[in-house]
Amino acid sequence: MHRPDEQFATSPNCATGDIFDLAADLARRLIARDGAIVPLPDPRRVEQALHLAPPALGQPLETVAEHLWRLLECTPSTAGPRYFNQLFAGRDDAAILGEILAAVSNNSMYTFKAAGAQILAERALIKHMGAKVGWTTCEGAFTPGGSMSNLAAMLVARDNALPDARERGLDGRPIAIYTSAESHYSIKKNTAILGMGRQTVRAIPADNEGRMRTDALAEAIAHDKAAGVTPVLIVATAGTTVQGAFDPIREIAGVARDHGVWLHVDGAFGGTLLLSRHRRHRLDGCELADSFTWDAHKMMGIPLTCSVALFRDPTLLQRSLDESASYLFQRDDDAYNPGLRSLQCGRRNDALKLWTAWQHHGDEGYEQRVERQFALAAHAVGIIEADPALTLVRRPQSINVCFAVAGVDARPLCNQLDHDGLIKVSHGEVDGKPIVRLVCANPALTEPDIDAFFAEIRAAAVRIRG
Amino acid sequence: MHRPDEQFATSPNCATGDIFDLAADLARRLIARDGAIVPLPDPRRVEQALHLAPPALGQPLETVAEHLWRLLECTPSTAGPRYFNQLFAGRDDAAILGEILAAVSNNSMYTFKAAGAQILAERALIKHMGAKVGWTTCEGAFTPGGSMSNLAAMLVARDNALPDARERGLDGRPIAIYTSAESHYSIKKNTAILGMGRQTVRAIPADNEGRMRTDALAEAIAHDKAAGVTPVLIVATAGTTVQGAFDPIREIAGVARDHGVWLHVDGAFGGTLLLSRHRRHRLDGCELADSFTWDAHKMMGIPLTCSVALFRDPTLLQRSLDESASYLFQRDDDAYNPGLRSLQCGRRNDALKLWTAWQHHGDEGYEQRVERQFALAAHAVGIIEADPALTLVRRPQSINVCFAVAGVDARPLCNQLDHDGLIKVSHGEVDGKPIVRLVCANPALTEPDIDAFFAEIRAAAVRIRG
Repeated sequence: MHRPDEQFATSPNCATGDIFDLAADLARRLIARDGAIVPLPDPRRVEQALHLAPPALGQPLETVAEHLWRLLECTPSTAGPRYFNQLFAGRDDAAILGEILAAVSNNSMYTFKAAGAQILAERALIKHMGAKVGWTTCEGAFTPGGSMSNLAAMLVARDNALPDARERGLDGRPIAIYTSAESHYSIKKNTAILGMGRQTVRAIPADNEGRMRTDALAEAIAHDKAAGVTPVLIVATAGTTVQGAFDPIREIAGVARDHGVWLHVDGAFGGTLLLSRHRRHRLDGCELADSFTWDAHKMMGIPLTCSVALFRDPTLLQRSLDESASYLFQRDDDAYNPGLRSLQCGRRNDALKLWTAWQHHGDEGYEQRVERQFALAAHAVGIIEADPALTLVRRPQSINVCFAVAGVDARPLCNQLDHDGLIKVSHGEVDGKPIVRLVCANPALTEPDIDAFFAEIRAAAVRIRG
Repeated sequence: MHRPDEQFATSPNCATGDIFDLAADLARRLIARDGAIVPLPDPRRVEQALHLAPPALGQPLETVAEHLWRLLECTPSTAGPRYFNQLFAGRDDAAILGEILAAVSNNSMYTFKAAGAQILAERALIKHMGAKVGWTTCEGAFTPGGSMSNLAAMLVARDNALPDARERGLDGRPIAIYTSAESHYSIKKNTAILGMGRQTVRAIPADNEGRMRTDALAEAIAHDKAAGVTPVLIVATAGTTVQGAFDPIREIAGVARDHGVWLHVDGAFGGTLLLSRHRRHRLDGCELADSFTWDAHKMMGIPLTCSVALFRDPTLLQRSLDESASYLFQRDDDAYNPGLRSLQCGRRNDALKLWTAWQHHGDEGYEQRVERQFALAAHAVGIIEADPALTLVRRPQSINVCFAVAGVDARPLCNQLDHDGLIKVSHGEVDGKPIVRLVCANPALTEPDIDAFFAEIRAAAVRIRG
């Protein structure tokens, strides 16, 4: 009886534990590079240098591990002091433990029959997070990312506003979706996916702090209604992508209530502020929303991806997604079969890493984590305000610090720093002008790391000015 | 400077490697239970026994690991000889190595800037898999599961048939989607998500081998066209969920060509047969399709989830999904920024585990794996044919063996075996009658394991007959 792995009979494996030794060795080498300067050349050159196509014949796992290392060597460190590029950063050891066991146990999260108690851990998190939003009952789903959580919420909102949509499809009647001009691009993208058309999205202007203007929102809805347009939903953002701004949720909820429109809060980035007594006021009124997106892979530091779509009414998600598949949903009541409420069918357990990390850190640990992220942002603001060559373009509402460098376009500045392997940081736009967006997402960094970031910014500016 | 983890300063972590020791210990205990009988009680009882809510205060990671173990103890083993429940089973050590490093490096797969060479490994797999489909050029995206790959393909097909849909939304004109009555439930679900309405789906009858009837398909399209209905796409299935049947793709492609309709092949389950010279004839003609779904987490044994949506025309996916987000897509040409072609924004690297496994097994290893899965299915067929109390309801086209047990309803039979922890196996329906669906997805099993499966079936049948 021939088995595929007979030729590598002594391969490291999970049962003997030596697969974990191999992983530990690669991880150690990866972590040792966290602070290193790693210039990343043109992708074509890397592609030519590495031989990445699957081979016809297999190779011993030790050999493959070395290939894997060469690949990882050409991968940016997201946990080191040179990484400020995204809304996430850092490395959570407890979460990685949960992630490894999710892979080793490999249960698919559609039914209790198939995944057992892993379903219950996921349920406990949904309940806990819903309570943090301010709801006594709720339903929810772990999804593969904030865009997908927004998609689930927008789908439910669509089917709520247009009850025929699920069976009969969109019928061409004029509809509208309201969100701030600063909101995430997934709102427009999802509107198109859901068959509602990108032109349906009304980009409501933001005030001079990057927050959706409630007066403009109310006006747009009234105008649309007068013209016979059906409002489908309002998306408020808790933590915008560039500025980290928080829309005034309580005010917006008032408009939503007055007009009978679904309110979704996209808290993919800023939802984590709910875990801090001192910061949750930024989301004041969020308990009035109908749905809420919260990414644990951003400020909470869980490995990608770990996102939750939460719903105040526990019945609606299933109404939009349930398909009777008798070969799959066989036992136990619906509450324990989340496949009935998922965009996906087979689904990895993204909850287990969060469950493990939350058991380790506790609510209190996350509160401290948020405070630490804010402290780093405050330190950065102090540096900018003390340096006449740097301009803070907005007073930060959370951990994004947007600034301009005198006489230097932020775009070539960030690109140059990236090219040389010195700093990964993004440029963005505020008031139509390019800015540097520093995200203080990694609580393991120190004030001297932030100082070093600005030293690199200043040195690069000097080089670019010539 | 206070840090969240100060209270657990000596916590196991990745840098010292002891997080991997902890993982290895839990994995060893999990694997030791692979063959054990584990009755799974009512979910409510398990929920009460475990304390799953996140605590206010954190706990040392060693304590959390024991909580995690209690949770995993109540989780079905998907790699042992008692698991035949889903279209996946088994454990791939090489893939787990890749999965661990994806979590430790934690790069988001939207841009080369953010993920470096990990983008290139993903590209290499998309190219390799597209070549196996039979295409010289292609584009594709890793998605979180077969349902999502089908969603991406159906979205692109929709926007191809209805060019205004992306900007203006569906306009209510009559449209139709064609798929076999045996196809996966995600087709209907996705049709609703995409705003086209569930009633748009035409369930084309299958022949007595579970394959879509091409004559009925051609007739349905002609009938719709005569009535002014616009055909949007045809979905052929390569490996149906219950019977494992393969629609006649070349014939269907002829109908698609005659009518100018997009052809999507849902090879989530059966796509892996392309890796076997002896079995790929089941997908004859698949190179004529416009798009193709292939799940590596099913027959290839990669941990969940690992799915690819492939497109013959390399330009269309981006046309349906690209949103200009200047703060994100900053450098390098579009080919190296897969975020422009993804349903998701932030995205974990599901490709790295497949890349690692494919490097280890090679094409040849996967061919042997497929042959081994077929050999186990053939052994099961032999047992059924030799036992007058068992009836093979279809000659298997792949690794699903559907059978009936004389005098016993498959539904209580499977539920009883599950309840007692003896066997996880699903019931399904063929010709409106309940059947047991044995899936031979785990190549590490042996013929005696299959014999033992049938011994449990017979014993349970005796108990139920009383």
